[in-house]
Amino acid sequence: MRGAVMYAPGDIRVEDRVDPRIVAPTDAIIRLSASCICGSDLWPYRGVDAIRGPSPMGHEYAGIVEQVGSAVTTIRPGQFVVGSFFASDNTCEICRAGYQSSCVHREGIGAGGAQAEFLRVPLADGTLVATPDIPADDLLPSLLAASDVLGTGWFGAVAAAVGPGQRVAVVGDGAVGLLGILSAKQLGAEQIIALSRHEPRQQLAREFGATDIVAERGAEGVAAVRELTDGLGANSVIEAVGTQESMLQAIRSTRAGGHVGYVGVSHDVTLPGREMFFSHVHLHGGPAPVRRFLPELIDLIWNRTIDPGKVFDLTLPLDQAAEGYRAMDERRAIKVLLRP
Amino acid sequence: MRGAVMYAPGDIRVEDRVDPRIVAPTDAIIRLSASCICGSDLWPYRGVDAIRGPSPMGHEYAGIVEQVGSAVTTIRPGQFVVGSFFASDNTCEICRAGYQSSCVHREGIGAGGAQAEFLRVPLADGTLVATPDIPADDLLPSLLAASDVLGTGWFGAVAAAVGPGQRVAVVGDGAVGLLGILSAKQLGAEQIIALSRHEPRQQLAREFGATDIVAERGAEGVAAVRELTDGLGANSVIEAVGTQESMLQAIRSTRAGGHVGYVGVSHDVTLPGREMFFSHVHLHGGPAPVRRFLPELIDLIWNRTIDPGKVFDLTLPLDQAAEGYRAMDERRAIKVLLRP
Repeated sequence: MRGAVMYAPGDIRVEDRVDPRIVAPTDAIIRLSASCICGSDLWPYRGVDAIRGPSPMGHEYAGIVEQVGSAVTTIRPGQFVVGSFFASDNTCEICRAGYQSSCVHREGIGAGGAQAEFLRVPLADGTLVATPDIPADDLLPSLLAASDVLGTGWFGAVAAAVGPGQRVAVVGDGAVGLLGILSAKQLGAEQIIALSRHEPRQQLAREFGATDIVAERGAEGVAAVRELTDGLGANSVIEAVGTQESMLQAIRSTRAGGHVGYVGVSHDVTLPGREMFFSHVHLHGGPAPVRRFLPELIDLIWNRTIDPGKVFDLTLPLDQAAEGYRAMDERRAIKVLLRP
Repeated sequence: MRGAVMYAPGDIRVEDRVDPRIVAPTDAIIRLSASCICGSDLWPYRGVDAIRGPSPMGHEYAGIVEQVGSAVTTIRPGQFVVGSFFASDNTCEICRAGYQSSCVHREGIGAGGAQAEFLRVPLADGTLVATPDIPADDLLPSLLAASDVLGTGWFGAVAAAVGPGQRVAVVGDGAVGLLGILSAKQLGAEQIIALSRHEPRQQLAREFGATDIVAERGAEGVAAVRELTDGLGANSVIEAVGTQESMLQAIRSTRAGGHVGYVGVSHDVTLPGREMFFSHVHLHGGPAPVRRFLPELIDLIWNRTIDPGKVFDLTLPLDQAAEGYRAMDERRAIKVLLRP
């Protein structure tokens, strides 16, 4: 099969790879209908995260089940399925508490490389969620978004305790931040402040439900959010970047007693304990337990209540993955969908 | 009046101080029935926190109202009252959300020095809670504990989301940690693991509801807590120290999706963002909004449901405050009550 492999920072090649096969009896093999490039793929692409030799890329996926292992009982060949970037048994105590991305048996999907034609998914019964039927083609981008960016934005909003009537701020205008806005809107937020300086992203933010745009950063950004929230700060702030700057931006934009939901993969972050202590904020986040939300998200997409697929503003054939990486790196595209 | 003043690390003197007077019309003056020395008073006593010149000490108080300002409407002279270490209006949006210690009009009590005969309390209507009657003398220690250490331990348990059936660990065996145990028990915890190496404190921990004692620290302490919690870690961990070591101990003892409630005043703490991210813990804490809990805590004490006053294992006349500080510094006493 064809699949994208990162050889070094900036060096993405689509090449022939060995077809994945059933390894454990709980595995499934999926023929990917679509895959995509994640903001987190840009960390190694930019050389911020190291890679050890050629690495198959991609961890977001939706497609048709080709084959299942002998122990798989609920997932069947022919079903259209969406899964999360961590495989989970969905039965352990951690999964039952809703933290499938910390499942005691979790396995990363990334090693398999979902920017490809086929993917092996471990723990298929616990990981995959089937749609009611084979979806219409125009639903594909949204279902693919559910696999990570929507699920992650949604978790950011849930972790930030977004609820009816709340005032929300969102730090980060990448796909996750934008879908954090959509999620906050869906969860009943009254005010949604998007921190963004990029005109096309501001426009999508407004489409998804942002009521205010703040272009300033740092102390000025904090002051602008406070001014929009009676001088107190937001009740809920979604952090969707993962840098020291964005975390402090988020914490300082939150009122005492408010909540920060952080879903940007932490990079250079060290949190000052004393400031945290006196800030009185709640802090929660981490790798989104997308599996927890998939049934609900698939339902919202299936009923066309939400259209998260709008974050894909560039679609390319899989063979042009390298151009997709370049477009995202240069911020010419918000998120790139790859068609195998 | 007589009052304790810190001149330098290790140098506490009880001397004649000017009687406090009504400054703002919202003030009250209280004749203190009892005061005490706080674990946090040891930070400047040990030279860890700097002081600028002679500083009146003490921020925990209970006593009889002597006088109120012209704008005070609910508090009356002659009432027995308990207050918190932050004065709060109890009407602003932050107070109404339960974060009175971040009230937009908050004022510290500490500057007045509660280790004394009299104390000025600002924002009396919002800050003070009267007991149903003048309390029996044996209730005094518990009512005084409500002013800070009990309220802080209780907030630690609430911030750690302790509830019925939960498995709880408590880092820190000072008065706050011990009362965190009492709080967790009262809030319905099924298992309470006390991290303590001091025999008399272990005994009080058990009296307050601890089901297990772990004497190890660091990685061994984490392993011991995990072993006691099906290998997963506790649902809720109360951190009641405020050092880097204790914060990491708490975070690493918490299962994915679990909660850390931290109430030890942060000193040398910087939290590693990446570890926090992948830990999946909820983090919340800060200066306890004791005012939120005072009515409930006073009720539990008045009905003799709880006896938090047991943390006072040494009672001294106010004039011997210096000996009280020494006893706590040398860990000869858990907590010292001072009688003016």
